[in-house]
Amino acid sequence: MSTPVLLAIHAPAVGDTSAPAFTQVSADAPLLRVTDRAVTRGDGIFESVGVMDGRMQALDAHLARLARSARILDLPAPDADVWARATRAAVAAHEPAPERFAKLIMTRGPEHEDRPTAWVYVDDMEDYTAQRSEGIAVVTLSRGYPRDVVQTSPWLLQGAKTLSYAVHMAMLREAERRGAEDVIMTTSDGYLLEGPTSTLLVRLGDRLVTPRTDEGILAGTTQASAFSFLRDEGYDVAYESLPVEALSHSTGLWLLSSLRLAAPVRAVDRRPVAVDHALTDRLNDHLAARTQ
Amino acid sequence: MSTPVLLAIHAPAVGDTSAPAFTQVSADAPLLRVTDRAVTRGDGIFESVGVMDGRMQALDAHLARLARSARILDLPAPDADVWARATRAAVAAHEPAPERFAKLIMTRGPEHEDRPTAWVYVDDMEDYTAQRSEGIAVVTLSRGYPRDVVQTSPWLLQGAKTLSYAVHMAMLREAERRGAEDVIMTTSDGYLLEGPTSTLLVRLGDRLVTPRTDEGILAGTTQASAFSFLRDEGYDVAYESLPVEALSHSTGLWLLSSLRLAAPVRAVDRRPVAVDHALTDRLNDHLAARTQ
Repeated sequence: MSTPVLLAIHAPAVGDTSAPAFTQVSADAPLLRVTDRAVTRGDGIFESVGVMDGRMQALDAHLARLARSARILDLPAPDADVWARATRAAVAAHEPAPERFAKLIMTRGPEHEDRPTAWVYVDDMEDYTAQRSEGIAVVTLSRGYPRDVVQTSPWLLQGAKTLSYAVHMAMLREAERRGAEDVIMTTSDGYLLEGPTSTLLVRLGDRLVTPRTDEGILAGTTQASAFSFLRDEGYDVAYESLPVEALSHSTGLWLLSSLRLAAPVRAVDRRPVAVDHALTDRLNDHLAARTQ
Repeated sequence: MSTPVLLAIHAPAVGDTSAPAFTQVSADAPLLRVTDRAVTRGDGIFESVGVMDGRMQALDAHLARLARSARILDLPAPDADVWARATRAAVAAHEPAPERFAKLIMTRGPEHEDRPTAWVYVDDMEDYTAQRSEGIAVVTLSRGYPRDVVQTSPWLLQGAKTLSYAVHMAMLREAERRGAEDVIMTTSDGYLLEGPTSTLLVRLGDRLVTPRTDEGILAGTTQASAFSFLRDEGYDVAYESLPVEALSHSTGLWLLSSLRLAAPVRAVDRRPVAVDHALTDRLNDHLAARTQ
């Protein structure tokens, strides 16, 4: 195991003038006070960037999504240049390894202060080999919301990648209780959403479909790369409303994420799903090799 | 302003044997590593206890609710004796003031470790005098969930007081944008719930009603004390399903919480609501004077 690397970012938002913009600090030492609103309210945003053989993957897409999350949460706009430099510096300071990740976090900062807390943390990735090759068993669980909440109730923060993920973690524990490893979240009115930490890809005949991002899911950075690969392979790709029944008509399912990449689903709610190992391997080779 | 007091709790769960069970640490110094699941996932639970003229209020009820939240989140059972002793010690170590609060937090601890992080933090309360006497303007906002989610989807953690409160904070910002100071949350199927950090009390004729706790709201510790006072005053009190239309029939509304106590509502969605100042003042005198 390598030693994790932690950079505290002193000028995370557009207009911040603190110099230096970031400094390396001990990854073992505490960084957050108990009054930080990340701690007391889960009030902040994050991104997880894959680093494969030293290549940072889709960093621009992650920074664009960080900016989008900041807008939804009324946080200061992240300075993309500072974050990109800090992420590169953190990766460069970390001992090389085949699979690493950089976690970018910006919080609303300590209570009664108007100053975000921000950092980049780089560590070795856990080993996802088995999930990528053998696939995962998933269960469907309701996220509790109808699919129009992005339009009707923006304060529910759907579409933002926030630090308030206790429900997502509870869903993964519920999956484990049901003998599965992951979750496909559904709306209260019967539509497919995403995984708690991943984007859903559904094969319907020759088409590969992912739920529409205006229905309360995150715009998947890995899913965007996957679509570009699949289009080049001759598949039709589309964003569509997917009723839960689409699962029974599908001939293949994947959960896509920045670190695990494409995990084929081998069972949904205990019902077996066929895994296309050849396509999955080609897709994962493409995802691991990309820089954008 | 007094100096805040922070006690780190080393033996927060039943069966923990770390000695000493807690120690005072600097409240200014960082306590949490960036890998703590409170920070990365809002994965933990909390309670806020009012301390009025040195009297800790409803500590047993708060500790019972902390235990309930731990059960809902599959966290280790808090050791009530350790938490009570730590809370008393933290208050005793803090400079006396008329209105203070103790915040009790237990997180799932650092990633890849099986050990909660826990502390008690004591500080002066902000000044709620105006809100208690003049009242607050509130707006209704949908929480997005139907009222049966506690039964159908326990992984949504409704009824637990978790650190994942980004949505609650976004609701307060939305209220501010609408010229109000607080929120009454509603279900997607048209029922009243609670405030983002408070319990709702609705006056309907001679009856004082609060929504049922099996419909996805927290069991209010202050509301329980208020019911006992109101019963002694001769009012009928009840837990009932309250459709949103109950707001237009009501002749009084309050939001109850451990620190602000009873805040009378003077407007809902810009519609004025009558404030019973005499009853509110007597209720707040009772709440400020209680120990249980």
